Amino acid sequence: MALPSKVKLREVAPRDGFQSWPDFVPTDKKIEVIRAVIKCGVREMETTSFVNPKAIPQMRDAAEVIKQVPRQGCRHAALVPNLKGAQMAVEAGADQLVLVISASQSHNKANVRRTIEESLADLEAIFVLAREKNVPVTGAIATSFGCPYEGDVPEEDVFRLAQAFISGGASSVILADTTGMATPSRVDQLVRHFIERFPEVEFSLHFHNNRGTAMANLYSALEAGATVFDTSLGGIGGCPNVPQAAGNLPTSDVAYMLEDMGIETGIDLVAIIEAEHLLEKILGRVLPGQVMKSGPRQPELAARVCGISHTI
Amino acid sequence: MALPSKVKLREVAPRDGFQSWPDFVPTDKKIEVIRAVIKCGVREMETTSFVNPKAIPQMRDAAEVIKQVPRQGCRHAALVPNLKGAQMAVEAGADQLVLVISASQSHNKANVRRTIEESLADLEAIFVLAREKNVPVTGAIATSFGCPYEGDVPEEDVFRLAQAFISGGASSVILADTTGMATPSRVDQLVRHFIERFPEVEFSLHFHNNRGTAMANLYSALEAGATVFDTSLGGIGGCPNVPQAAGNLPTSDVAYMLEDMGIETGIDLVAIIEAEHLLEKILGRVLPGQVMKSGPRQPELAARVCGISHTI
Repeated sequence: MALPSKVKLREVAPRDGFQSWPDFVPTDKKIEVIRAVIKCGVREMETTSFVNPKAIPQMRDAAEVIKQVPRQGCRHAALVPNLKGAQMAVEAGADQLVLVISASQSHNKANVRRTIEESLADLEAIFVLAREKNVPVTGAIATSFGCPYEGDVPEEDVFRLAQAFISGGASSVILADTTGMATPSRVDQLVRHFIERFPEVEFSLHFHNNRGTAMANLYSALEAGATVFDTSLGGIGGCPNVPQAAGNLPTSDVAYMLEDMGIETGIDLVAIIEAEHLLEKILGRVLPGQVMKSGPRQPELAARVCGISHTI
Repeated sequence: MALPSKVKLREVAPRDGFQSWPDFVPTDKKIEVIRAVIKCGVREMETTSFVNPKAIPQMRDAAEVIKQVPRQGCRHAALVPNLKGAQMAVEAGADQLVLVISASQSHNKANVRRTIEESLADLEAIFVLAREKNVPVTGAIATSFGCPYEGDVPEEDVFRLAQAFISGGASSVILADTTGMATPSRVDQLVRHFIERFPEVEFSLHFHNNRGTAMANLYSALEAGATVFDTSLGGIGGCPNVPQAAGNLPTSDVAYMLEDMGIETGIDLVAIIEAEHLLEKILGRVLPGQVMKSGPRQPELAARVCGISHTI
């Protein structure tokens, strides 16, 4: 086991979580949660997405959110599906663009109503715009570990998109298990091959827990050399175009596990649990995160943060 | 990664799950679920426990359950906390005894109202009885990865109990993370040291998901050389004496992940998902398992077994 000493967590609840939440989360509540998360030490965030507000009304306040959120050392990325979204995100002042294309044709069509080729055709104009405005671009590859319509996705289809993003000038890549189809051996293989093929490129893993394997996948990725992971406050998240989608890895579960393994994340565990409690209160529903319920492993901390009493 | 080609799953829902379920599950419903599970290929089961019916009324039908369940190649173990429980289990016809003692003093007192020394004092008489009746004994070590009252549990305290069980004649040992305090590095270390110290002894890992790490722990244990795991239909389970306890690893989540990694379990994945749907119907509440909701990764199977439609 050769594990990294340091890992970076990208917080995706404001985008992936609020986007898939059944109700529109009011802008001021979004800002309140984002402020709380930044105070916990989060330095990378997927903060909103510039998508068609008729298709995804939950994100209709994207420009306002980007304008209002504090920086305080945190970089706010905006997900964009196309050139129009990129223009709006840059206009609003996003610190980074996350450009998403699916590795499988059927999912790209379901997700952004275009073929992969049509999505790729936009790349040049988006990169020109990003360079002009000096905004870094991350390429996100959806269905990297499997497609809910097509099943297995060939590694070559994933790497073709990665190559297109990197050739265009992307500063990093996200390998997304959009519908929770990854297992540790698939993760081990894709991560090792990605590092062999693109040794200089920063990449993040984005896992969903539809089949209960997300945390095992993260551990497998860690062992294979990954050092950046997408996590979500309270474990909220999903994909509106995928039935039965389940949440992302909960930020406090991951921060807890890595801290216990001696891996630095820069996240204050108690503060992030409290931010999850705030989110739960705002959303008014029990969230999937486990550490936010059980607390850290130290009995006195579990008692203080989660009200768990273990006196005999 | 040197992973085993074959893994054995011990089904613990009838004991760990029904024991911690708030309501008494009627005996005929228990038998119905157990029958369904055996049909899926399960060959080892923790079927009930012989405990004080005043303290845990959910298990008051232990003798009836053991008498009524079909064998069909499946071995039915009964958990026992003391000599009296062992006598009743043997009397009823249990195929195996699971004798549980906690590695931490406070948890043993909370769980069985005795000190570890008082529990150990019963061992000889239990092993004599078991030998007389030709019933194999498994030694289960609760709080092997941490205690909710005391925090970290020294490895030596775990191995002292393991040694006592093995010296007495136990045929195997269970290392239980009773309240979900394990993380992959702790699991890696304990499993490797256990194998070094007791190279000939069969052992099982029993993980709870209180802090979201159970599946990562399983994967870490696999890499360290473990080949037997406790899982629970639908992921039900917990410990009645531990606040905020969370479920066991869901049987179909584990069967799915291992099958996808090319590791044989002998479990029919579709059949076990259907058994989890049956259990959910009987218990009348959404269960924690994920594969029972999202289905296998093959789109046509997910559609057939979980009714998920992915047509575009």
